[in-house]
Amino acid sequence: MKTHFLAATPVAAAMAGINPAHAGEQAGAPASRTDAAPRQEVLLERVTAEYWRVTLDNPPFNIFGPETIPQLNSVITQIETDPKVKVVVFQSAVPGFFLTHYDFVPPLSATTDMPPGVTGLPALPDMLVRLSRAPVVSIVSIRGRATGVGSELSLASDMRFASREKAVLSQWEIGAGLVPGGGPMARLPRLMGRGRALEVLLGGEDIPGDLAERYGYVNRALPDAELDHFVDALARRIAGFDKQAIADIRRLVDIPSLPPDIEIGAEWDAFLGSAHRPQAQQNLKRLMEMGLQTKPDVEKRLPVYTGTLGQ
Amino acid sequence: MKTHFLAATPVAAAMAGINPAHAGEQAGAPASRTDAAPRQEVLLERVTAEYWRVTLDNPPFNIFGPETIPQLNSVITQIETDPKVKVVVFQSAVPGFFLTHYDFVPPLSATTDMPPGVTGLPALPDMLVRLSRAPVVSIVSIRGRATGVGSELSLASDMRFASREKAVLSQWEIGAGLVPGGGPMARLPRLMGRGRALEVLLGGEDIPGDLAERYGYVNRALPDAELDHFVDALARRIAGFDKQAIADIRRLVDIPSLPPDIEIGAEWDAFLGSAHRPQAQQNLKRLMEMGLQTKPDVEKRLPVYTGTLGQ
Amino acid sequence: MKTHFLAATPVAAAMAGINPAHAGEQAGAPASRTDAAPRQEVLLERVTAEYWRVTLDNPPFNIFGPETIPQLNSVITQIETDPKVKVVVFQSAVPGFFLTHYDFVPPLSATTDMPPGVTGLPALPDMLVRLSRAPVVSIVSIRGRATGVGSELSLASDMRFASREKAVLSQWEIGAGLVPGGGPMARLPRLMGRGRALEVLLGGEDIPGDLAERYGYVNRALPDAELDHFVDALARRIAGFDKQAIADIRRLVDIPSLPPDIEIGAEWDAFLGSAHRPQAQQNLKRLMEMGLQTKPDVEKRLPVYTGTLGQ
Repeated sequence: MKTHFLAATPVAAAMAGINPAHAGEQAGAPASRTDAAPRQEVLLERVTAEYWRVTLDNPPFNIFGPETIPQLNSVITQIETDPKVKVVVFQSAVPGFFLTHYDFVPPLSATTDMPPGVTGLPALPDMLVRLSRAPVVSIVSIRGRATGVGSELSLASDMRFASREKAVLSQWEIGAGLVPGGGPMARLPRLMGRGRALEVLLGGEDIPGDLAERYGYVNRALPDAELDHFVDALARRIAGFDKQAIADIRRLVDIPSLPPDIEIGAEWDAFLGSAHRPQAQQNLKRLMEMGLQTKPDVEKRLPVYTGTLGQ
Repeated sequence: MKTHFLAATPVAAAMAGINPAHAGEQAGAPASRTDAAPRQEVLLERVTAEYWRVTLDNPPFNIFGPETIPQLNSVITQIETDPKVKVVVFQSAVPGFFLTHYDFVPPLSATTDMPPGVTGLPALPDMLVRLSRAPVVSIVSIRGRATGVGSELSLASDMRFASREKAVLSQWEIGAGLVPGGGPMARLPRLMGRGRALEVLLGGEDIPGDLAERYGYVNRALPDAELDHFVDALARRIAGFDKQAIADIRRLVDIPSLPPDIEIGAEWDAFLGSAHRPQAQQNLKRLMEMGLQTKPDVEKRLPVYTGTLGQ
Repeated sequence: MKTHFLAATPVAAAMAGINPAHAGEQAGAPASRTDAAPRQEVLLERVTAEYWRVTLDNPPFNIFGPETIPQLNSVITQIETDPKVKVVVFQSAVPGFFLTHYDFVPPLSATTDMPPGVTGLPALPDMLVRLSRAPVVSIVSIRGRATGVGSELSLASDMRFASREKAVLSQWEIGAGLVPGGGPMARLPRLMGRGRALEVLLGGEDIPGDLAERYGYVNRALPDAELDHFVDALARRIAGFDKQAIADIRRLVDIPSLPPDIEIGAEWDAFLGSAHRPQAQQNLKRLMEMGLQTKPDVEKRLPVYTGTLGQ
């Protein structure tokens, strides 16, 4: 028997068949899909043999679903094994959204039934851990919301640059009674210290670009008009450097800064535990009723909506 | 035989009986007390079942003495064991002082004679370690001086917010030849990096709100007029979230960010070692003669006075 | 047979005999020397018995060569063993250059033939590790370029203060296909977090004073006109404090913040490995042809020149 993320509620059923035309200003693509052959949401472009670009393109909200996992996994496997690539930039093609939360319409088993990855971790954390260790420089260019999985992908990457005006980072999960599952409890304290990490994780609030820079959530927040040029110039610069020296520097930086896999695995377990609790199921049901995954306002101001659940 | 903090000096004796009316602008409460039944300095208010507020109220300087330990310990024990509380805010009722240094009038044995706590650590570090691990979110709202124990309580809490105009943090102890005893050598480097931690600990200077934010000593410095509302709104928000998810997130953040007890214990030992050295005894005697614990100017500009001792 | 840093290339031979009068605006001293009795490049001044000042004086570029190692080692040995000194300030006497990269003219064997130090590490990392552990407060006052060894000496010191207008920090080595060898992969992530450390190490760009402060590369960037007074006042203040308390605080801060020697040793090995690769040899040859160690513009805008090598 399949476990549905929202365990067989009418809401989940209704959501699964929702008319994408009602999903907001951006038409033409549903907020989530359960088709057998999903469209390509993760686009890989080889700018040069040494410099690749990955574009996240799942409008209208860049929600991350079970169908995204094999697509992103394929890209990460190529990054790990290609003999020439030195640097990869992740960006979004969806206005307002870099990459957001997990898709709550498909059954959770669509993810948990996947076999573990080569690290022995479940599919999603396996993929992020491998990206963080690959001998290739990963850079995220954040424009729009990097929430949940979007924040976790950013944290698993080597460097984070954000649009000062248009980037928003968050781990919103606590607002739904969920524990994040993709590494932020391991990565945020090492990046910004315990106090600010606890604020991000336990407040579940939006962190705009400039605050993200002050907290060390991103390397820098840049004026939106300069972001693309800055990231492209840095990537091209690194692409001209020696691949072995890059790999050696990364390997030595990993020692004091990468979390051990056991911490990442423990987070996934805590996420699953939280997802099955009645409190989270009820919170998610209410958020779906409010318009999560369908109404732009709910996606764009998610912490405002989560803030109403406990009252 | 009792060990006096200032080993049986006339100064200590004089201080113990000092007339509180001479203690500065704020009358009505002595700077320290040795009464059998001390007044309540640590006030616990249950704003709701989930959101508690602790007010530090020992005018005129919010000095932390041996009589404060069981009071704060009682509050922390309730925080640890209450089934409903999710978030606790620490604040001060004393203008100009969040919480300052240890009381140098009573004999040091008044503290060292206390039995160890459940962690096996001595009473003061035991209490702070337990606060840092309790499955409850602790937030300090710093207005006025958070010096010595005040800084250590802040560092043991989950999050620190400071008044941009009125907060001052410091570990002033080196100025008296003392090693701090409540955790800052373990906590500050993990929060702000080695270089800034060494500056705070070895310079013994006042760190105002905005520098405290730049250094990561506090999460944020907020305009004084906004501080109370910000902290209250954050606390109420967290109080609406799921207690189990809060506890799970804290537990996972603890792994990379909490110091092991052995580091905390070593600090207390180093503090005791330093307190017994003639250099520190002489420094404290001179500071008491200058007006420590009695004259507001000495308390408010403590680093200026410590800066004169070595010359 | 000696291994030359630039393995017996005509360029290296030519460089070794270069006329210093052609080296740029600053005449009178060669960019590197192979004399039997080198001039004193590391000047030790005892401001007081407790407060020492070390001046780096190897014009025109403050390049760090094999002849510098015993000079700096002698100073560090005195810092370690003197019974009175409490604080030491490192500064430069060379306008525009705090301390830059390794000297690529002498054979690399001039360094690798040196016996290991008391830590068991090779001479250069041994010296930096010992400075980082000495029971004395080390402060660098950075005006001009702190690149390569200059950045590594700064990172091995306790505190870093920089001229807002005139300081530039960098680990430029990746630009030449080199892995840095003096500790930055171990120290930078602990100081500024993984993301910013990877940017510094893999981008190889200049980091000016204010960005260095935002990244935590330095404690603070101060207006150039205030830097000397600030550092001098802090040093005199610390010099008045108790030496044993200083040592105890440093010892306890070391526990969570100093990297283990094995990480430092691994970096040196990776540096040597990279220095022998044809890619680095070719890059260095081309940089020398462009004017490394001879033309001020190459030294002052080194990342611009390294950025041209891969294209």
